[in-house]
Amino acid sequence: MGWGDLGAFGEPSKETPNLDQMASEGMLFLDFYTANPLCSPSRAALLTGRLPVRNGFYTTNAHARNAYTPQDIVGGIPDSELLLPELLKKAGYVNKIVGKWHLGHRPQFHPLKHGFDEWFGSPNCHFGPYDNRELPNIPVYRDWEMIGRYYEDFRIDLKTGEANLTQIYLQEALDFISKQQVSQQPFFLYWAIDATHAPVYASKQFLGTSQRGLYGDAVREIDDSVGKILKHLQKLGISENTFVFFTSDNGAALISAPKQGGSNGPFLCGKETTFEGGMREPAIAWWPGHIPAGGVSHQLGNVMDLFTTSLSLAGLQPPSDRQIDGIDLLPAILQGKLIDRPIFYYRGNEMMAVRVGIYKAHYWTWSNSWEEYSKGINFCPGQNVSGVTTHTKEEHTTLPLLFHLGRDPGEKYPLSFASDEYQRALEWISGVVQQHKATMLPGMPQLNVCDKAVMNWSPPGCEKLGKCLKPPRSDPKKCVWPH
Amino acid sequence: MGWGDLGAFGEPSKETPNLDQMASEGMLFLDFYTANPLCSPSRAALLTGRLPVRNGFYTTNAHARNAYTPQDIVGGIPDSELLLPELLKKAGYVNKIVGKWHLGHRPQFHPLKHGFDEWFGSPNCHFGPYDNRELPNIPVYRDWEMIGRYYEDFRIDLKTGEANLTQIYLQEALDFISKQQVSQQPFFLYWAIDATHAPVYASKQFLGTSQRGLYGDAVREIDDSVGKILKHLQKLGISENTFVFFTSDNGAALISAPKQGGSNGPFLCGKETTFEGGMREPAIAWWPGHIPAGGVSHQLGNVMDLFTTSLSLAGLQPPSDRQIDGIDLLPAILQGKLIDRPIFYYRGNEMMAVRVGIYKAHYWTWSNSWEEYSKGINFCPGQNVSGVTTHTKEEHTTLPLLFHLGRDPGEKYPLSFASDEYQRALEWISGVVQQHKATMLPGMPQLNVCDKAVMNWSPPGCEKLGKCLKPPRSDPKKCVWPH
Repeated sequence: MGWGDLGAFGEPSKETPNLDQMASEGMLFLDFYTANPLCSPSRAALLTGRLPVRNGFYTTNAHARNAYTPQDIVGGIPDSELLLPELLKKAGYVNKIVGKWHLGHRPQFHPLKHGFDEWFGSPNCHFGPYDNRELPNIPVYRDWEMIGRYYEDFRIDLKTGEANLTQIYLQEALDFISKQQVSQQPFFLYWAIDATHAPVYASKQFLGTSQRGLYGDAVREIDDSVGKILKHLQKLGISENTFVFFTSDNGAALISAPKQGGSNGPFLCGKETTFEGGMREPAIAWWPGHIPAGGVSHQLGNVMDLFTTSLSLAGLQPPSDRQIDGIDLLPAILQGKLIDRPIFYYRGNEMMAVRVGIYKAHYWTWSNSWEEYSKGINFCPGQNVSGVTTHTKEEHTTLPLLFHLGRDPGEKYPLSFASDEYQRALEWISGVVQQHKATMLPGMPQLNVCDKAVMNWSPPGCEKLGKCLKPPRSDPKKCVWPH
Repeated sequence: MGWGDLGAFGEPSKETPNLDQMASEGMLFLDFYTANPLCSPSRAALLTGRLPVRNGFYTTNAHARNAYTPQDIVGGIPDSELLLPELLKKAGYVNKIVGKWHLGHRPQFHPLKHGFDEWFGSPNCHFGPYDNRELPNIPVYRDWEMIGRYYEDFRIDLKTGEANLTQIYLQEALDFISKQQVSQQPFFLYWAIDATHAPVYASKQFLGTSQRGLYGDAVREIDDSVGKILKHLQKLGISENTFVFFTSDNGAALISAPKQGGSNGPFLCGKETTFEGGMREPAIAWWPGHIPAGGVSHQLGNVMDLFTTSLSLAGLQPPSDRQIDGIDLLPAILQGKLIDRPIFYYRGNEMMAVRVGIYKAHYWTWSNSWEEYSKGINFCPGQNVSGVTTHTKEEHTTLPLLFHLGRDPGEKYPLSFASDEYQRALEWISGVVQQHKATMLPGMPQLNVCDKAVMNWSPPGCEKLGKCLKPPRSDPKKCVWPH
């Protein structure tokens, strides 16, 4: 989803009454970011509180390339990383992930090996359908074992766009919450549904209900589901003991718009880019009785903060043996404080941009290559800012492009290099960047090697279902990351 | 102001708490339009309930050109037009205009000759400062006579951006409301301040208060003023008897952005164009005790509807001897009805586009000429939709470009000509357009002739002030309208 997909953030069809109400009962974050313009690295960052370049969710196969965890990826979340659920266990939390894991699908990367107690969902995106020869269909797991595969056992009708997956994920969430309420155990639910990712789907009851087409139908179903989860918490009488945060892992995929992709509102470009449209996210915090209703925050936030904030809520400290990039947002949420902290915009192994205060500096600009662009792959459809949305990778490390995101949220008007404002802002930003680079110890890159043999051919549990497939011969190669 | 300038419409700095509260207490219109992408014609349409091409506020000097009322315009609002205040008088209303009139500045066009009882403000934009030789400074009137001139008597500091004009206009509004409440007479107040038009200004107390720069300061001052007007109505105990509507006369002037121009949110281009960014407007209706709080309407609305709706509120019928384009919005506002009606997007004498339901058809596309564009005049900065934001005037009258504004509010993806959807939508739209064209009787164009002799050299009252200037010899010419 993108920043502009919610009514509360100005989507002109205004079709998200539940999320809008969540905002009016809670706090809207207007300057909240993801850690990467792509799915897997963002999710790894959320669960580790660390930038992908630290936790290994990046590639060094080429400079500044987006990488994720397709089926043939060999890597995944390293054992050395400490995940939020692992830490929450120490405070007696029961942890469940519903939906897309995306931190590696080989046995050593299984979410139940990384702190989760329960899992219902899939290790990868719901791409397909595949023929189970070239590529296996993606498995759906319950806890340790697969219970079926997308398209075969969990239907997605690409023609009509019908699939009841979000309803299944919703029910899993509601049941888990009910169970924990009975057992009186504190819980962490990571509701990581894979809608609205393309191929977009919605349940029958939501199909055709949106002005925005199928993508809007999917948004409506998510909106409705969030509303049901919040009402469930209220019905069980635990809403004042439950902190809920809604956000997205990257900007709307404009390359799939308008049928399969959403809106980044007034921001530039979308998913895959380090412009605001790629990384500024809708974000709402909700905790009745604690968060003042109708609050709005300009705190610069990041999905990595959910790691540190969740630990803080559980009375835990973040690990002290490693660099943690997430900060504790509770002072911002509960006391309205503004904490000074930068936002880093990485593409793979390169820090492309940084936001400090209201200023953003681009050290590298790139939408995608001319070669891709000429084939119709466009991350900035309808947008073209000369010298900014470049199709060759442009280096600006000695004289970064600077934008004032208050006056110019759309990144259309770089500040004049000759202006006093540029000089003052650059001085401020340069100090932040120098400190960041001086203390940066990149992790071992996990997204370099691909091998068809590691795909989801024979996940645990496949025997019982008669769904084991024969893997091809192992042939590890450098993964190709085109943008 | 543009659609995207209010927090309630997704402006990311969210600096309009009063307008946002007005929306939460009233009704937000998401599909509300002005009658023209430019000031004077929109205002003439608002006050007559008729399209500019009917009421004369257009030019035939060239095809599809935007025209307004600069100082040297010879024309103005014809006597044959019936203005809202003229009609409201019949129901005992006292009518006041505060701010910019813009329907002609020569004696016969004076607002007090067209139904207003009181006027405080100016006939033209606050451009300047002028040297009073080539061009006179714009006069400010109280009722029949000028009481000073901009820059001379009503200061605007272009260096600092300081001017207390909005405060003066606010006080005029509050005083008028108080007076009517004492006299128990019904009133119509047309609060037509000229902020946020460039050159942008704000009072000292608002300077530097916005994240968005000087333009944002001006928006904040308007927001604060609207809040004070609404509170004043409540304090006087007449809020439940007072219908208030907030809107703008054209989209944000992106040509002046970011320092002097605002935001049209996710929409394409801005002022001067017939894309959504040029004509879709922020709009809020407020009437406590009558309009349900927090309502949202997708009714296709137009500033011309304020004419018909206001008459309806006063128990009056619109004139039956002429075509009225405005509709009565009360069923939409009070009963949540959706009234089927088209929106026409004119540029001068040409119907460029039409919206019917969720579809918009462009019969002509043009941002501005290559000649202007090459000089840096850009109505769509950072935006470029191939074949849509054209720099040559492109005719599509046989096969219009069609957009689905729900799936594609940004007008980036024309429907395929070969699709069933295109055929169905076009059939529907064609019927509406045929009927419109068949019944269209254009009015006599008022914006064709310019003459430096008619400028504001010696407005009534200038003698008392010693501010009469000698006009040059009359030399009427065709006005030049470049875009």
